Amino acid sequence: MQTAGLALHTDKYQINMMYAHWVNRSHQQKAVFEAYFRKLPFGNGFAVFAGLERIVHYIANLRFTDEDIRYLSAQEENYDSAFLEELKQFRFCGNLYSMKEGALVFPNEPLIRVEGTIMETQLVETAMLNFMNFQTLIATKASRVKQVATGDILLEFGTRRAQEEDAAVWGARAAYVAGFDATSNMLAGQKFGIPTKGTHAHSWVQSFPSEQEAFDTYARVMPDDVTLLVDTFDTLKSGVPHAIETAKKLEAAGKKMSAIRLDSGDLAYLSIKAREMLDNAGFSYVKIVASNDLDENTIFNLKAQGARIDTWGVGTQLITAADQPALGGVYKLVEREVNGEMIPTIKISGNPEKVSTPGKKDVFRIVDRVSGKAIADYIMFPDEEKPHDGMRLKLFNPQHPYLQKFVKNYDAIPMLEQIFKNGLQVYTLPSLDEIRQYHREQMDLFWPEYLRKMNPEIYRINISEKVWNLKQKLMAEYMQVEE
Amino acid sequence: MQTAGLALHTDKYQINMMYAHWVNRSHQQKAVFEAYFRKLPFGNGFAVFAGLERIVHYIANLRFTDEDIRYLSAQEENYDSAFLEELKQFRFCGNLYSMKEGALVFPNEPLIRVEGTIMETQLVETAMLNFMNFQTLIATKASRVKQVATGDILLEFGTRRAQEEDAAVWGARAAYVAGFDATSNMLAGQKFGIPTKGTHAHSWVQSFPSEQEAFDTYARVMPDDVTLLVDTFDTLKSGVPHAIETAKKLEAAGKKMSAIRLDSGDLAYLSIKAREMLDNAGFSYVKIVASNDLDENTIFNLKAQGARIDTWGVGTQLITAADQPALGGVYKLVEREVNGEMIPTIKISGNPEKVSTPGKKDVFRIVDRVSGKAIADYIMFPDEEKPHDGMRLKLFNPQHPYLQKFVKNYDAIPMLEQIFKNGLQVYTLPSLDEIRQYHREQMDLFWPEYLRKMNPEIYRINISEKVWNLKQKLMAEYMQVEE
Repeated sequence: MQTAGLALHTDKYQINMMYAHWVNRSHQQKAVFEAYFRKLPFGNGFAVFAGLERIVHYIANLRFTDEDIRYLSAQEENYDSAFLEELKQFRFCGNLYSMKEGALVFPNEPLIRVEGTIMETQLVETAMLNFMNFQTLIATKASRVKQVATGDILLEFGTRRAQEEDAAVWGARAAYVAGFDATSNMLAGQKFGIPTKGTHAHSWVQSFPSEQEAFDTYARVMPDDVTLLVDTFDTLKSGVPHAIETAKKLEAAGKKMSAIRLDSGDLAYLSIKAREMLDNAGFSYVKIVASNDLDENTIFNLKAQGARIDTWGVGTQLITAADQPALGGVYKLVEREVNGEMIPTIKISGNPEKVSTPGKKDVFRIVDRVSGKAIADYIMFPDEEKPHDGMRLKLFNPQHPYLQKFVKNYDAIPMLEQIFKNGLQVYTLPSLDEIRQYHREQMDLFWPEYLRKMNPEIYRINISEKVWNLKQKLMAEYMQVEE
Repeated sequence: MQTAGLALHTDKYQINMMYAHWVNRSHQQKAVFEAYFRKLPFGNGFAVFAGLERIVHYIANLRFTDEDIRYLSAQEENYDSAFLEELKQFRFCGNLYSMKEGALVFPNEPLIRVEGTIMETQLVETAMLNFMNFQTLIATKASRVKQVATGDILLEFGTRRAQEEDAAVWGARAAYVAGFDATSNMLAGQKFGIPTKGTHAHSWVQSFPSEQEAFDTYARVMPDDVTLLVDTFDTLKSGVPHAIETAKKLEAAGKKMSAIRLDSGDLAYLSIKAREMLDNAGFSYVKIVASNDLDENTIFNLKAQGARIDTWGVGTQLITAADQPALGGVYKLVEREVNGEMIPTIKISGNPEKVSTPGKKDVFRIVDRVSGKAIADYIMFPDEEKPHDGMRLKLFNPQHPYLQKFVKNYDAIPMLEQIFKNGLQVYTLPSLDEIRQYHREQMDLFWPEYLRKMNPEIYRINISEKVWNLKQKLMAEYMQVEE
């Protein structure tokens, strides 16, 4: 989980393009890039933006070390030594705007905007996408789990199945952003102040002559948070009865057992039976924790079947976003400098969804003043008049412009924050508590129809008429050129 | 991609169990754990073991820093300060045996065996599984891709979609172990000496007034490896014709263009047409590189459709192992010390596949002396007579013991290498080239039936009669105890 020494955490083509621009003396030309995704993961109605803290550390510490330069000088491209000298002095000196962590975000709106020389804006693409794509993916998955388990305790338990260390640690943070209560990963706890939770493994039980002795010993030496794993041999015949014995001994010592944990078998049936056994023995205060390849669908179904589970330990499915393990965030050039002037640029594609939207853009969230709920996101050029209460705003579907409506009584909340200004960090990173609070406020901004995990209503992402007109104009121009 | 400071990259329950054993004064008891997986990923017939280099660095540098201790002392478990003092002195002093990186490995055989005090063997579980599970998963996925693209060049292009930085960098290494030729990730190149490859992005083309000018400029300033991305506007109408123009200019300057790259559209059709256009223009030496969400299935189908692609850039699907993004490796206690003696231990489960195999075990690969091909892996206790040529060996299916055969004319290759002995590293990490060579030799040991990507023949993983008998005996004992 390093934050410095990441200058080479980039694709070779970035270095090649930086070099090619340098040789061509076009490397100081200004450029504007925007990062966005085209499609929401998991069939969800929104994504939860995450990754900014990591990106801020990355940008602020972006340097080529002597070791990096030596490595580059040995590449087969044979980079000119004056270029390598210039890299030694490299600092990110541009501007960076971003959504805040915890924000609900949507397809085809800029999540991050980078302005600077073509050299610096190009270099940062790979690492920024890598961080944003993964952390946003996991926060979004966690938000789906959170939604079906409202009111329950959610624990992130995925480290051993995570895709290496960073994924475990930054993934634990992303899950916490979206409302998880704790993680099992101690490094994530240490780095970010996330609460950590853990009980014991089957091996604890196996390392004693009997399950009863294992439970009693654990309760004696860890009396403050006794959660016993009850499925090493047989949950209902052996594990729960032994746990009840231990709970009695704890009570006799003036203590209370916290919970039992189920980790295999039919969790609906076992939790209902275990609840009965605990209640009948007078231990209605003992909670039930469940784990074993859980995700939002299994939790939803278990709850529908009346499972009596208070706390969910969610591992593999969350930490790898198993049903869709990548968010396809991209980073596209939207403006470039020509003779000292910035001109918009477009990427054409045979696939209409893949045509980029030209020009550097801002995003406003339009919130109805009566209901307090979000109506649409509105994307426009920074030099257009900012939408404000009383200003009649035309909202139309950019794919089907005849679908339009006008709004007037709204607040327009700017979504992109400036993070770096001429290379200087001008944004104070919020605490994780503040990020979680912001995320909850964001969730409250949306009608439940947009938030439901199956077939959500599609939230409107609208562009201004100016943006739409420019896009049509550039598309027409390119189609003519290419005839 | 840090290698030190990872002591807290573990689940809280490991620390809790270490503490509980410490309070119980059982923390110096010896234990033996084995790491293995139960099910092969992707429906493949084998997995490619990877992760050992990372594990060796982790174990060798395993220390609790003062910062770690301060963090632990603030935990709600209120760990005794004498325990934290002991952690300050902690070093891994046990034995570790492992498969070599690049080995073909199979379900239910020990891949790593750890022997030491219960405290040290428990601590290392989480990180070891995290590293082994991910790297083995990616090496296995890469091996599937390699198999369908024999003879072609394979490039790992996944960084921006990887699950954070470690996944990108260690994933690039895992792909290289299994036969990929290069990566786009410069940090992986720097850390491991993997060849790096890269061309240019759409943004390069967009940052010039015309595609022709973009191509010509790139070819002028990067004359040694000119690969041009031809799909920014229209592959066949614009990209390929412009690339041919550039190739002509390069030839006039005495240079040769390397390749064009296709990154969208129907890669079969486009590559066939582009090949024709290049050949007709006299550029049969210009290669075709393709990328765009490729995996072993798309490559297999594209080749079946006659695609004329020389080099495959494989990204998202490989680096996230998208069709199965986690390997379910587990780590189970197989022996524990009781009154100074090591006794085997078992974990029972209602699910027969999940019952662990007791006792510490070695693995031999039994290779037929006539064909030179592997017949079975043979798992036995270290104190049994080692199989050797001429010794009649009974191979039987542990689930269906009546399925048996005897072999006599074989070599028995020990698969587990000792890596640490009483905490000292006794194994010299091989170079990546040596690992790749070993992997190729491993592939050659197997009949193609075991290697094919669909419905492979199942390779025999056999246990000795002694191991089988002990497992039956312990299962019967536990079933009695629990009546």
